[in-house]
Amino acid sequence: MLHFEDFPVGQTRTLPPKRVTREEVIAFAAAFDPQPMHLDEAAAAKTLLGGIAASGWHTCAMLMRMICDGFLNDTAGLGSPGLSEVRWLKPVRPGDTLTASYRVTEARASKSRPGLGVCRLVYDVARNDGETVMTWDCTHFFACRPPVADSEQS
Amino acid sequence: MLHFEDFPVGQTRTLPPKRVTREEVIAFAAAFDPQPMHLDEAAAAKTLLGGIAASGWHTCAMLMRMICDGFLNDTAGLGSPGLSEVRWLKPVRPGDTLTASYRVTEARASKSRPGLGVCRLVYDVARNDGETVMTWDCTHFFACRPPVADSEQS
Repeated sequence: MLHFEDFPVGQTRTLPPKRVTREEVIAFAAAFDPQPMHLDEAAAAKTLLGGIAASGWHTCAMLMRMICDGFLNDTAGLGSPGLSEVRWLKPVRPGDTLTASYRVTEARASKSRPGLGVCRLVYDVARNDGETVMTWDCTHFFACRPPVADSEQS
Repeated sequence: MLHFEDFPVGQTRTLPPKRVTREEVIAFAAAFDPQPMHLDEAAAAKTLLGGIAASGWHTCAMLMRMICDGFLNDTAGLGSPGLSEVRWLKPVRPGDTLTASYRVTEARASKSRPGLGVCRLVYDVARNDGETVMTWDCTHFFACRPPVADSEQS
């Protein structure tokens, strides 16, 4: 179980890749972002994107899943207050394989909430061709590692 | 069809409300954010949230749908480069009804891309009890209104 102390500034980690399917792109868009460029190939071809592409929010949701599977579900995570930046830089297409990584840019113990650690993780998501499609600057809360009791130290 | 000129600084708009269901909360979490506080009532009760709550990314996705239905699908929208802030402030629970609104804080014609307008919309999403659960500071691109041809003016 990873705690605040396991996310020092400068640490990097690469997450397991995710292949994007046409069915997932269309299903997410139909539920949450029903714009032509996310739903229909013919309509998408007439837009600036020049063909069907995932909703930016779908890319966010896919990264969140990669984060859960990659490390978060093995941490003493205490949620997130939000992000100071989300950038969508290039289209994500059906058939793309996404690779994500993070770098820890800040790690501090909370003064107001003892036992809470605050970390900023800057995420980069890239396509097969190496182009970055999305970045996040995301704050995570983690529990600090509990002090080892005397009886356990022996 | 709304264009850049239809989003002046200071404009506000309230979007149609969205009721959050338990089934949707769990289905989104199972697909994209499988953490105990989003998936299972008993496990969620043991977390800081004190009971099941929607993934923050689900709240984002629900707001995106409210935006599409509320105005975006009737605009000459040209997508978004991202957000300069996403804040999750309070939990969203099954049974909550979300109401969202925006305020335009910036509107400028692009110098590098003639015909493109850049708008910043600050969104606020509130629960039934009036508490803000999420805010966004989001950049939208819209096409500028085409000049009226001489023959059409007469």
